[in-house]
Amino acid sequence: MAKAVSTSLVVKPGKHADLRGRDPGDRLGMADKAVGVQQLEALTERLAQLQNRLWAESARSVLLVLQGLDASGKDGAIRRVFTGVNPQGCRIVSFKVPTGEEPAHDYLWRVHRACPPRGDLGIFNRSHYEDVVATRVPPKIDDATAAHRYRHIREFERMLNDEGTTVLKVFLHLSNDEQRKRLQERLDDPAKNWKFQKADLDARGHWHEFQRIYEEVLTETSTEWAPWHVAPADHKWVRDVAIAGLLVEVLDRLDPKVPPSDPGLEDILVT
Amino acid sequence: MAKAVSTSLVVKPGKHADLRGRDPGDRLGMADKAVGVQQLEALTERLAQLQNRLWAESARSVLLVLQGLDASGKDGAIRRVFTGVNPQGCRIVSFKVPTGEEPAHDYLWRVHRACPPRGDLGIFNRSHYEDVVATRVPPKIDDATAAHRYRHIREFERMLNDEGTTVLKVFLHLSNDEQRKRLQERLDDPAKNWKFQKADLDARGHWHEFQRIYEEVLTETSTEWAPWHVAPADHKWVRDVAIAGLLVEVLDRLDPKVPPSDPGLEDILVT
Repeated sequence: MAKAVSTSLVVKPGKHADLRGRDPGDRLGMADKAVGVQQLEALTERLAQLQNRLWAESARSVLLVLQGLDASGKDGAIRRVFTGVNPQGCRIVSFKVPTGEEPAHDYLWRVHRACPPRGDLGIFNRSHYEDVVATRVPPKIDDATAAHRYRHIREFERMLNDEGTTVLKVFLHLSNDEQRKRLQERLDDPAKNWKFQKADLDARGHWHEFQRIYEEVLTETSTEWAPWHVAPADHKWVRDVAIAGLLVEVLDRLDPKVPPSDPGLEDILVT
Repeated sequence: MAKAVSTSLVVKPGKHADLRGRDPGDRLGMADKAVGVQQLEALTERLAQLQNRLWAESARSVLLVLQGLDASGKDGAIRRVFTGVNPQGCRIVSFKVPTGEEPAHDYLWRVHRACPPRGDLGIFNRSHYEDVVATRVPPKIDDATAAHRYRHIREFERMLNDEGTTVLKVFLHLSNDEQRKRLQERLDDPAKNWKFQKADLDARGHWHEFQRIYEEVLTETSTEWAPWHVAPADHKWVRDVAIAGLLVEVLDRLDPKVPPSDPGLEDILVT
């Protein structure tokens, strides 16, 4: 894998996301799964160290936003990349259909509430991006509303970035055929039945429509301050290396510093 | 008072707020206090009816943002304008110095959380505007950060407006001399002592600096979707009529509708 995985995966701000031109089966230059597993191990170790420094510094935060179609591996990626990372200072939030007081507010209200405090690494399993994707197949909002929301989202993330939260956005890019296989597996394997819902088939029926909308969303909301990345997701190990690699890059760039120790510690003898 | 009080008080988007050109002692064309008291009574009655319809409709919300120097009458205005309005569906939030988990997040985090749900009339006694005013005397943020925040705030309020919250912003415009009198009163009247803090004198020492910053803030953040209004505040009764008048105008324009009744109610006899 090239060192800067972000360079090959980024959706350049102002350019078309071009999902069709990106291969969901790409291996990021890794020969086989064994290489990927080794890479992931090194990356998650580095991630744990960096996250610990971010937490000790307590001045800035990082927000990872994960989006992708059903079975693209959001849950799996979270399990594999963040197992081993100190859960203190690392919070995962799953956004489902809004309930309770959530729908009584604007769509960014629950998302803003859940944003990570200084020192934290926050992970969004789905996010405000559902409000410009899931709301459109079948259409619950019109194109003009979607265009307004693109602007809200760009400006919301600009504010987060200005005020100390680095936003890393990753779209898990799955092929139509691999989605078919994974959904079939959920039906065939009793241990995976709980993950299957009939609505998944309806959504799959709109596969091309979702690709088109995601392409638009990625194009419209990839910015200098919060760019999108497209992670090839047909191979789970590639997907995990991509996410871990992107996170390590972001944290390396932030280079969080453990606070200086109190002066005079060298003279203290604990008795 | 002219019917559309907003026309005379608004800071036109794109124009300079020109506080020096606005008279804090203005009476909005009312002959004397007796006229004002009568006006206020009519306005608060109308306000109560409209707020009830807003609450019944439960589809949109209104947010009143009150800003002003010490002793400009924010607390007094809230007491006089909203006593008599159904407290259900009407929530007042006072923003003081951030505490607890608030300072661990961006400055809009606690403000967004407190925004009114559909059906509610929300009142902010101070607001996110303190983050571009109080933070600058003495300066805790630089001018570049303030300029970034102007943009965040404009875009945040645009989003609120797009998603169903009408934002009404009122600056209580008090003269230097009237502030002096009111602060002296707080010192002289034991019943008002609790409202006085020594820090108020420090702030008063920076009176001209605060005027300059408020002028900049009003100029930079008065928008088509969330314009500022400058309410003359030297006369408390004028201030109250101005706020109530502005709110009634906003609610009249929204024209909230009580939901239609269930069909067939006319055939039901309660036994």
